Amino acid sequence: MNQQRKGDIDTFFNPKSIASIGSLKGGIIGGACLIRNLRNFGFQGKIYPVNPSYDEILGLKVYPSVTEVPDAIDLAVISTPARTVPAIIKECAEKGVKAAVVASDGFAERGEEGAKLEQEIVDIARPAGMRIMGPDTIGTTNTRSGATTNLYQVNYHKIQKGSIALGGQTGLIGFQAFPFEDYRYGISKICDYGNRCDVDEIDLIAYLKDDPDTKVISLYVEELADGPLFLKVARETSAKKPILIYKAGKAKETGKAAALHHGSIVGEYTTYASIFKEAGIIPLATFGEVFELPKIFAYQPLPKGDRVAILTVSGAGGVAAADTAIDCGLSLAKLSPTTIERLSRIHPTLKSNPVDLGPSVVVTNPLLLFNEVVEALANDENIDCLMVYFYGAPEMPSEFYSELLSKFSPTKPVATCVYSMGTLGVEQASRTIESLGFPVFSDIETSVRALAAMVKYSQWLAKNKS
Amino acid sequence: MNQQRKGDIDTFFNPKSIASIGSLKGGIIGGACLIRNLRNFGFQGKIYPVNPSYDEILGLKVYPSVTEVPDAIDLAVISTPARTVPAIIKECAEKGVKAAVVASDGFAERGEEGAKLEQEIVDIARPAGMRIMGPDTIGTTNTRSGATTNLYQVNYHKIQKGSIALGGQTGLIGFQAFPFEDYRYGISKICDYGNRCDVDEIDLIAYLKDDPDTKVISLYVEELADGPLFLKVARETSAKKPILIYKAGKAKETGKAAALHHGSIVGEYTTYASIFKEAGIIPLATFGEVFELPKIFAYQPLPKGDRVAILTVSGAGGVAAADTAIDCGLSLAKLSPTTIERLSRIHPTLKSNPVDLGPSVVVTNPLLLFNEVVEALANDENIDCLMVYFYGAPEMPSEFYSELLSKFSPTKPVATCVYSMGTLGVEQASRTIESLGFPVFSDIETSVRALAAMVKYSQWLAKNKS
Repeated sequence: MNQQRKGDIDTFFNPKSIASIGSLKGGIIGGACLIRNLRNFGFQGKIYPVNPSYDEILGLKVYPSVTEVPDAIDLAVISTPARTVPAIIKECAEKGVKAAVVASDGFAERGEEGAKLEQEIVDIARPAGMRIMGPDTIGTTNTRSGATTNLYQVNYHKIQKGSIALGGQTGLIGFQAFPFEDYRYGISKICDYGNRCDVDEIDLIAYLKDDPDTKVISLYVEELADGPLFLKVARETSAKKPILIYKAGKAKETGKAAALHHGSIVGEYTTYASIFKEAGIIPLATFGEVFELPKIFAYQPLPKGDRVAILTVSGAGGVAAADTAIDCGLSLAKLSPTTIERLSRIHPTLKSNPVDLGPSVVVTNPLLLFNEVVEALANDENIDCLMVYFYGAPEMPSEFYSELLSKFSPTKPVATCVYSMGTLGVEQASRTIESLGFPVFSDIETSVRALAAMVKYSQWLAKNKS
Repeated sequence: MNQQRKGDIDTFFNPKSIASIGSLKGGIIGGACLIRNLRNFGFQGKIYPVNPSYDEILGLKVYPSVTEVPDAIDLAVISTPARTVPAIIKECAEKGVKAAVVASDGFAERGEEGAKLEQEIVDIARPAGMRIMGPDTIGTTNTRSGATTNLYQVNYHKIQKGSIALGGQTGLIGFQAFPFEDYRYGISKICDYGNRCDVDEIDLIAYLKDDPDTKVISLYVEELADGPLFLKVARETSAKKPILIYKAGKAKETGKAAALHHGSIVGEYTTYASIFKEAGIIPLATFGEVFELPKIFAYQPLPKGDRVAILTVSGAGGVAAADTAIDCGLSLAKLSPTTIERLSRIHPTLKSNPVDLGPSVVVTNPLLLFNEVVEALANDENIDCLMVYFYGAPEMPSEFYSELLSKFSPTKPVATCVYSMGTLGVEQASRTIESLGFPVFSDIETSVRALAAMVKYSQWLAKNKS
């Protein structure tokens, strides 16, 4: 077991200097891409490329070995062939490097030989007090400092800063894999801990627990190394901020696939499910939810109860949303007599939940209609949270959304979904709605599941307050 | 009960002449929009606007009443206020109109008064042999003839012709609700039967069973009026082509919401589930699957068995896909010894399913690697179907996909999903892949569920061949 304090991994996110050790060739991956990423994301620290075959790259002096760099190095990013890594880690230790990301593959995920090599690294690093992330990893990204260890080329320059932390043992959470540029929500940190020979999910969660930039943690997890310690750290963290986890390798067969991919042992999913429940962790249903569901926690308040109201312009959309709500444990709010009276005065079809504006929206001014209905729902004490299924009409000005959304109660979370005859209509409306702090989800079901996740987390918090 | 032959509804899809009875005002809905839609979609028949307040619209003579139209009328589209509809239906019956779409709302979905009005319509139409679709409907669209009854304005001119029929009791399946223009697959027919006072899901299925343009039927269903007859017709249809159904109003509470929306009675979901199973119907998990899942049936062959191979460049993506496969009843193919030998000669990491190209793709020519691996998988008799998780690299030419996809076995269905650092990368790759006849799904889970749907349908077919 790791003797160092769990969660003591700040160097990976806030290094003052980074050494890139390995290939400097161009292409889609390598040190040259890393240097460009660091510059694009605004990293203000020092960058030291290390490679015996180069003198200079991208205007930076290249050093033949890390020991010859004249200044102190906080973080090394190593992308040399696996067999060369132990010697490089040794040099790093001598140099006093505080932390190293081993991006190279060919370790425990390849079998016994690789596992030995991996252990060698750990045995060198640990006595030197050096932390290791990986191997087989894209490492870390901190949107605030611009520090990243991601060696992949990306064709954009900006990830929105924000309060969502993404993590897991896969490069698939990295900004080279998905269009983070187009994401309309902000990220605080990204961390792929790879084979986690040293830094693991417990380190990451413990670190993010105290990270002031992070409001919600969303993870891809294949297995847990230390159940009891994980439970302890996760419980403490959940008391401060929500943790969402997509557990991969649920089935026995796929547990094996996950093991082959990372060379570690997996347990039965039921064990995980009970740990997650105990720790207040929200289990995610699909891989995509790792990216989508945290949005609601980042931007909306927690609900006081489980009663959801659904506002829609499509009857069928309302039914699908209501079905999902029941299915994931929410209850359909019973509108108060006052609300029913207010609504039915607006239009005789408006008298129950889901509130279907379909029949009334074609015979009224949509803005007035929506405003009145939202005001009624916002003030209804029988409602704890709202799902809105918007039609993204191309002619709808952004003021429609800003005026409308300002009418929602600041104490009741709102999840939305937009449909439209045009992809552009969906995009425009979504951009406007999210810029106003209301999350838009990719489909009806996910938006309702987001509210259910909040409700579950609130219930856990209430039970675990003592 | 309807005395007419079930499925005898061709006039709705292939009218020689259409009368648009009701408002001709501009805006987002009405007769003027319908006329534009008919012209945009290439309808070659006659169009007769009917409205006593106009003389001419969009270059067409407007008639004060349907009885004054000098020619025969096959199909009437009625969008006048509910209370005026019975009189108009009477005129239509006198005129010998064969079929009418009642788009107007305010009927059974509003309560007892409306239900009476609806019955009135049926009582006039039936003796005259006139079929009625609706009320409260957007009616029908036939992409081949360009015939549509959709009164909503749309800002595009083309829906790709193809073999997928969409239906249900909601306007949400209509082309005014989703970006059909951007859908990369073809549609044969669209039909919203609304309150189904006459034409219902049984008519629609029976009609589509014999429609040569339709290869797969995908429906949104809230309730069934006649279980035994539905079962009979659906079974006969399933023997010829697959039926996919999203059943809304699963929970008791939402059954009520569905009932309010359409004014009809709902049964327990378990009843539906057993009818669906018996009839070989594939139940859909989300509303979005109504649009996504039929693609695989339209473009790919049925699998011979349930053994899936997963090809990925992301280990985590492979695990998520494998989890979903197990979860929905597929089995993970055990690669044959020959395949294992071929693969491991390519790269030592390639030896099991999911086949994760991640470690090898960065050290090889991707096209050669993919080609060799796909050839091995295509020829492996232990594999019945494939899921491919592509990375949509911006620099990848479309020839990469065309060469690669031609290597897949023509007897094993392939479902794909694309991820990329850029939205454009996903779009470009998806467009290319789908133009080659391989469906791309929006996420890992849906692509695997599509294969599972095919397997389920094949198993039903095999069992019901006798």
